[in-house]
Amino acid sequence: MKPSIPKGTRDFSPSEVAKRNYIFGTIRKHFERFGFQPIETPTFENSDTLMGKYGEEGDRLIFKILNSGNYFFNRKKIELPFSIEELQLNSAETISTKQLIELNQFTSRISEKALRYDLTVPFARYVVQHQNEIEFPFKRYQIQPVWRADRPQKGRFREFYQCDADVVGSTSLWQEVELVQLYDAVFADLGLKGVTIKVNNRKILSGIAEVIGASDKLIDFTVALDKLDKIGEDGVKKEMLEKGISEVAIEKIQGLFDFTGTITEKIEKLSKLLENSNEGMKGIEELQFICQNVLAVGLQESKLDLDVTLARGLNYYTGAIFEVSAPEGVSMGSIGGGGRYDDLTGIFGLKNMSGVGISFGLDRIYLVIEELGLFPEAVLGTSKAIFLNFGSEEALYSMKTITKLRQLGIKVELYPDSVKIGKQFQYADKRGIPFAVIVGEEEMKKEEYNLKNLQSGEQKRVSFDELIKDLQ
Amino acid sequence: MKPSIPKGTRDFSPSEVAKRNYIFGTIRKHFERFGFQPIETPTFENSDTLMGKYGEEGDRLIFKILNSGNYFFNRKKIELPFSIEELQLNSAETISTKQLIELNQFTSRISEKALRYDLTVPFARYVVQHQNEIEFPFKRYQIQPVWRADRPQKGRFREFYQCDADVVGSTSLWQEVELVQLYDAVFADLGLKGVTIKVNNRKILSGIAEVIGASDKLIDFTVALDKLDKIGEDGVKKEMLEKGISEVAIEKIQGLFDFTGTITEKIEKLSKLLENSNEGMKGIEELQFICQNVLAVGLQESKLDLDVTLARGLNYYTGAIFEVSAPEGVSMGSIGGGGRYDDLTGIFGLKNMSGVGISFGLDRIYLVIEELGLFPEAVLGTSKAIFLNFGSEEALYSMKTITKLRQLGIKVELYPDSVKIGKQFQYADKRGIPFAVIVGEEEMKKEEYNLKNLQSGEQKRVSFDELIKDLQ
Repeated sequence: MKPSIPKGTRDFSPSEVAKRNYIFGTIRKHFERFGFQPIETPTFENSDTLMGKYGEEGDRLIFKILNSGNYFFNRKKIELPFSIEELQLNSAETISTKQLIELNQFTSRISEKALRYDLTVPFARYVVQHQNEIEFPFKRYQIQPVWRADRPQKGRFREFYQCDADVVGSTSLWQEVELVQLYDAVFADLGLKGVTIKVNNRKILSGIAEVIGASDKLIDFTVALDKLDKIGEDGVKKEMLEKGISEVAIEKIQGLFDFTGTITEKIEKLSKLLENSNEGMKGIEELQFICQNVLAVGLQESKLDLDVTLARGLNYYTGAIFEVSAPEGVSMGSIGGGGRYDDLTGIFGLKNMSGVGISFGLDRIYLVIEELGLFPEAVLGTSKAIFLNFGSEEALYSMKTITKLRQLGIKVELYPDSVKIGKQFQYADKRGIPFAVIVGEEEMKKEEYNLKNLQSGEQKRVSFDELIKDLQ
Repeated sequence: MKPSIPKGTRDFSPSEVAKRNYIFGTIRKHFERFGFQPIETPTFENSDTLMGKYGEEGDRLIFKILNSGNYFFNRKKIELPFSIEELQLNSAETISTKQLIELNQFTSRISEKALRYDLTVPFARYVVQHQNEIEFPFKRYQIQPVWRADRPQKGRFREFYQCDADVVGSTSLWQEVELVQLYDAVFADLGLKGVTIKVNNRKILSGIAEVIGASDKLIDFTVALDKLDKIGEDGVKKEMLEKGISEVAIEKIQGLFDFTGTITEKIEKLSKLLENSNEGMKGIEELQFICQNVLAVGLQESKLDLDVTLARGLNYYTGAIFEVSAPEGVSMGSIGGGGRYDDLTGIFGLKNMSGVGISFGLDRIYLVIEELGLFPEAVLGTSKAIFLNFGSEEALYSMKTITKLRQLGIKVELYPDSVKIGKQFQYADKRGIPFAVIVGEEEMKKEEYNLKNLQSGEQKRVSFDELIKDLQ
């Protein structure tokens, strides 16, 4: 039986790793240029650190690690709170709340560690744990995998990388300005033109809900508004009515359904709508600062837009909200997102630490770059030449040359066995190696090399210095 | 309560990540120069893939992942094969074999996935699973973390990185030659002089056991011999006698207790000892090829030595065995090791695939480089300059300059808030940022900058072009 890997996980082949590293490297380069510093946190955290931080759904999707070895059951006497037969669960529908609680209790006795679910909670834990070693404001970046027990489907995996840059300990809106610039710098460097960086502000959404008298329905309201693209104006209104938002209220936000124009025009419209909401006007002020300064400094390749339907992570963000959409014509969801959260570290007891950050969606960025054919060829990093193997004497001569070339930073290799020459050429071809070096008795005598271009078939006799020049 | 992380795991601070990445980057660079290609495998594998591959002790040290969410118990009706009370285990001593089997059966019902324990078994699984996409010989490298539920202690962690380079699908001894060169290239590049690369051959160990009539005691024999450094000649002999190796047999290997001289001299001694063992002589022949060619091509900084007591991974390796010891004067165990295993992929049903590989021990290499003060200063990658913040107008002017500098690849940052200047200087100092840029009204008018060297205190007025020059 052929071996396999767990569903939702992936093996990465050499060319995939090379392409992924190209994206990681580009992101890392700009993170560092912008003054962000790398940290890394453990793959698994104490369950306490993670549980209860991502909502009930999140808790269910966290991978738990079994207590190891003999320590399996050594904490306490285990008393199962139910008969084993009761545990024969087949789907969510069959679990009662009581059973769920009991199951969770049982789980927490046999498991005290869990796999990282995102990079934000471990970052908050890191900041609190190491607060005395950190200079605030602390600009950190983190590029590590996370795990979620989601049902795997196309483009959704159980193991995937997150690339996050966050600043903690400063409420300055220049952070938001810089984060927009950071998106622009990375996507410009990757050759992704025409990306749209959408901004909004949680306070504006609260303000709208407030002025239409639906503050208690903020989430229903934004969830519905967020669907404008998909279900259209009528669909959104219908959903809002169903959720108990009044016709009069919906009337007041009529302007949002056709919310076009420049950023300045949009801000003017919003100012009129929100003039009676303090919170809403605060949101507008913040948004204006960010947009004005981003535009004053200028973006290289990306467009900035104000999208009042943007509501991601609503329970989480308290100020700016960001989302990046792929260039027009590429059908792909958001390729990045982020925002400000006023109380990042409060969950671990450190109050008044404002955080703001953005994330890059590696898998989707990969797909967009692949679709647009933007991976540079050099990314693959194949060997420049293969020295064919004609026996131990020739191989030793070749290996001496190979060693010198490698010390000059040139990637070359020796075909390890002196098998039929056709097989060696075939190997070079399939590996995509552009040159073959052929060394026989005569070449060894003259200290020369036969250099064959495997694409053109052209072959020439060269000295060592010429060989360097041709392969460099 | 301050949050914490699970025992045996680590947070890495910015400077630690930077130093680790310097080592990873150096290793990766040489892996690629030598023609190795990167692959990555999932963090968790199906338990079947890992269990039974590392011996009984290994099985116990593998971290198991609980089946997730509602799927917890949904495979089969769970029938606990024992009462829960029986499971109150406190130490290895209290477990009967029956209980252990039952515990394992129970575990395998609630857990079907496990964390990667090393990189070799996942590599073997990868090769078998993707055999039709791979060109053999396949030279792959893999730099990923592994997890072991070992009792944590100084220098031993439950999560740590392995850096492996292996070739599969070729029996050529040139691979061994290149792997020794690869060690030398990496350690020379890291500035580690005087490293010793020790080689041995499993066939030589078998041959010795054979000629002294102790083939059935090969492991006892090598385990004892391996302790020569620690317990001395008398200690080793005593242990061998205790294990049932006869005095006559020990007499025959007297030469091994004072096994000095050049590699050539050592090989001569071994040839005499092993002249009646086919397997032993085959081992000598292999070793001779490797040593001769390594010395013919030459090493940059490392010493090559034949160490007949080298026996690591005895159940595993079938040919060459490598181990690297830190430079003399640094008390540190081996910083790398490897060898040849004739049947790498047999466990997954693909026969006759010889593999040979080496591994770099990141954590120990880090400690050695730290102890010898060999980390280059540039590794830390701090920002070159911080622009002080005097308010929104100055900040905007600064941000325009910062943006241009970043586009030139220069790492600079803006202090985000216009707080007291002393606080801003203090931040720059603690972060180790070498320059501060001060922009006031006058500088903005003249399009100039005040550049302050924070170490010398020297300050000068510069143009944009001069600023670039000073920071580049």
